[in-house]
Amino acid sequence: MKFCSNCGATVELRIPPGDSLPRHVCSSCGVVHYLNPKIVVGAIPEWDDRVLLCRRAIEPRLGLWTLPAGFMENAETTSQAAARETLEEACARIEVGEMFTLINVPHISQVHIVYRARLLDLDFAPGEESLEVGLFSESEIPWDEIAFRTIALTLRHFFEDRRRGAFGFHTSDLALPPPVGVV
Amino acid sequence: MKFCSNCGATVELRIPPGDSLPRHVCSSCGVVHYLNPKIVVGAIPEWDDRVLLCRRAIEPRLGLWTLPAGFMENAETTSQAAARETLEEACARIEVGEMFTLINVPHISQVHIVYRARLLDLDFAPGEESLEVGLFSESEIPWDEIAFRTIALTLRHFFEDRRRGAFGFHTSDLALPPPVGVV
Repeated sequence: MKFCSNCGATVELRIPPGDSLPRHVCSSCGVVHYLNPKIVVGAIPEWDDRVLLCRRAIEPRLGLWTLPAGFMENAETTSQAAARETLEEACARIEVGEMFTLINVPHISQVHIVYRARLLDLDFAPGEESLEVGLFSESEIPWDEIAFRTIALTLRHFFEDRRRGAFGFHTSDLALPPPVGVV
Repeated sequence: MKFCSNCGATVELRIPPGDSLPRHVCSSCGVVHYLNPKIVVGAIPEWDDRVLLCRRAIEPRLGLWTLPAGFMENAETTSQAAARETLEEACARIEVGEMFTLINVPHISQVHIVYRARLLDLDFAPGEESLEVGLFSESEIPWDEIAFRTIALTLRHFFEDRRRGAFGFHTSDLALPPPVGVV
């Protein structure tokens, strides 16, 4: 951030009165511009014993597999975001169930939330951001080609919980990724 | 948003290629500026059968009572945010426990998350944003002077769960507030 989105003047990094962290403060109108974490919301669309995955048509992680997920929009709820992203990325309609994972990714200032969901029909297809969309049983999951660590962790929790016959709600924090690895 | 924070030129509202919603797009450098929901994180600091509340020294809802809570910062986790806000608003140290409520407030594009927490000592005091800080048993809670609907709902869940001897995780969505009422 270099310029004030309110008046167009330059911003400077300084600690406003009563605050404890440096903020982008406008040198002209004085508006303080806060930067806050973003929420990514997704779903695990289930059909019998299989789950729906999308192969990414965009960076980052182009060509790798993920659950339908994306940035939450203003004025929607987390479950609405899960349904919208599933429709956009997989042209698939779901009934959103319980919140299943909430994973902090502090090094990129994101919080990832994934819901369990019931796929309502088999009329899915790749959306603009997907190369392919498919249903995978546990043994078919391409574990070495999952795009994001939060998605791999969510899928592991999902199959573990399904095996023991009880689904919980799982929260965790991801540490910094290894130098070469998935986000 | 009127000006581009990247180059200072004016922005215009239009739907970028491949997108479905109008965004603030720079008329000069072309950067798309997304607006996303903000996360508010708080805690229910417990000491024996009482919980810690803060009376707000700032707007909105100046003079009303709330749990320690505030906007999550970049590069922190949700539980770190809960501990930081409790330290800032009540000068109180807590051990953060389980995530307890996650409540969508779509009409103001916020997601409110509250953790259960154990107050570590009684050396609390009003922070800069609080007029007073105190411990309240269930019968002492000033229900008619709670600042925010998400906080009142969280406290109701807390006392209900405590009464039945089992704490769950509660998600819900707030509808638009009544014309005169709390957020």
